[in-house]
Amino acid sequence: MEFNLEEAIPVLERTPAVLSALLAEIPERWADSREGPDAWSPSEIVGHLIHGERTDWIPRARIILKQASFRRFEPFDRFAELKSDRPLRARLDEFDQLRSENVATLRGWNLKDKDLELTGEHPELGSVTMRQLLATWVVHDVSHIAQITRTMAREYTEAVGPWTAYFRVLQREVRQ
Amino acid sequence: MEFNLEEAIPVLERTPAVLSALLAEIPERWADSREGPDAWSPSEIVGHLIHGERTDWIPRARIILKQASFRRFEPFDRFAELKSDRPLRARLDEFDQLRSENVATLRGWNLKDKDLELTGEHPELGSVTMRQLLATWVVHDVSHIAQITRTMAREYTEAVGPWTAYFRVLQREVRQ
Repeated sequence: MEFNLEEAIPVLERTPAVLSALLAEIPERWADSREGPDAWSPSEIVGHLIHGERTDWIPRARIILKQASFRRFEPFDRFAELKSDRPLRARLDEFDQLRSENVATLRGWNLKDKDLELTGEHPELGSVTMRQLLATWVVHDVSHIAQITRTMAREYTEAVGPWTAYFRVLQREVRQ
Repeated sequence: MEFNLEEAIPVLERTPAVLSALLAEIPERWADSREGPDAWSPSEIVGHLIHGERTDWIPRARIILKQASFRRFEPFDRFAELKSDRPLRARLDEFDQLRSENVATLRGWNLKDKDLELTGEHPELGSVTMRQLLATWVVHDVSHIAQITRTMAREYTEAVGPWTAYFRVLQREVRQ
């Protein structure tokens, strides 16, 4: 499927509601579950998504749009904001607020095809287009929802007994 | 994590809201996306979940609770109700309705530890307990949410360009 801004925005807009529906007031053992010692819990993933709203997607898109001669992105710290003393409910609300603002910013730019072809420089990947950045934002959202629900599924690997045989997600080794 | 009814029910209760937040009024290309020719689309997975509400979880739990001498479950048809002429929004609402009723039924049984140890006979897996059945219901929900979001992520495998390197979900072969 080719990237299309009018199809991508509806996914970006939905993510806060999906996460709140899934995680708000959920028993803590689910929010704190993890696939392995170095894997992220659902709660930590919410922190990671908040950090992305602040430092990754829109700030990088701004660098691209500006088209200055130096347009290398700041490296994204994948491990920032994982931990927090604030309740999960408050962090879900913060993510919702940040995402709303960022989607409003994105809409306000009214990007055309030629804007989607503009490039910035990723610190590891080299030249990337606005289109690739925005597609990655979408993939990042839905793959973290997949990670959260997979993490939750795997908590019951033993509990399902013989049904393990029917769920590949309970069988394979998962690394963070 | 051991199965605990008071932790399992909150997950079962949340699934309709999660699916509606994710899929209601989403552009059709997302709802109809699939990982491969034999894989299920998000829209089809909703149909599969509806069928489960009607024929799988609660009906099987009733067979276990009844403790008749013959307590083999009907085979679950994984491919029933995948297709539908009804709009996705209507099917999401139907799933919500069926799930609410089924969770109310489950709560009403007020199952104790000894009830969770009662067994039925799975047509392929043999003897299974109520506890395993209910844990599987939870795993089935969250693993299908993971499947839906993974399917959506993979639609942009090409679109993200060099960022593919950062997403294992975009790299591995996925079979239905």
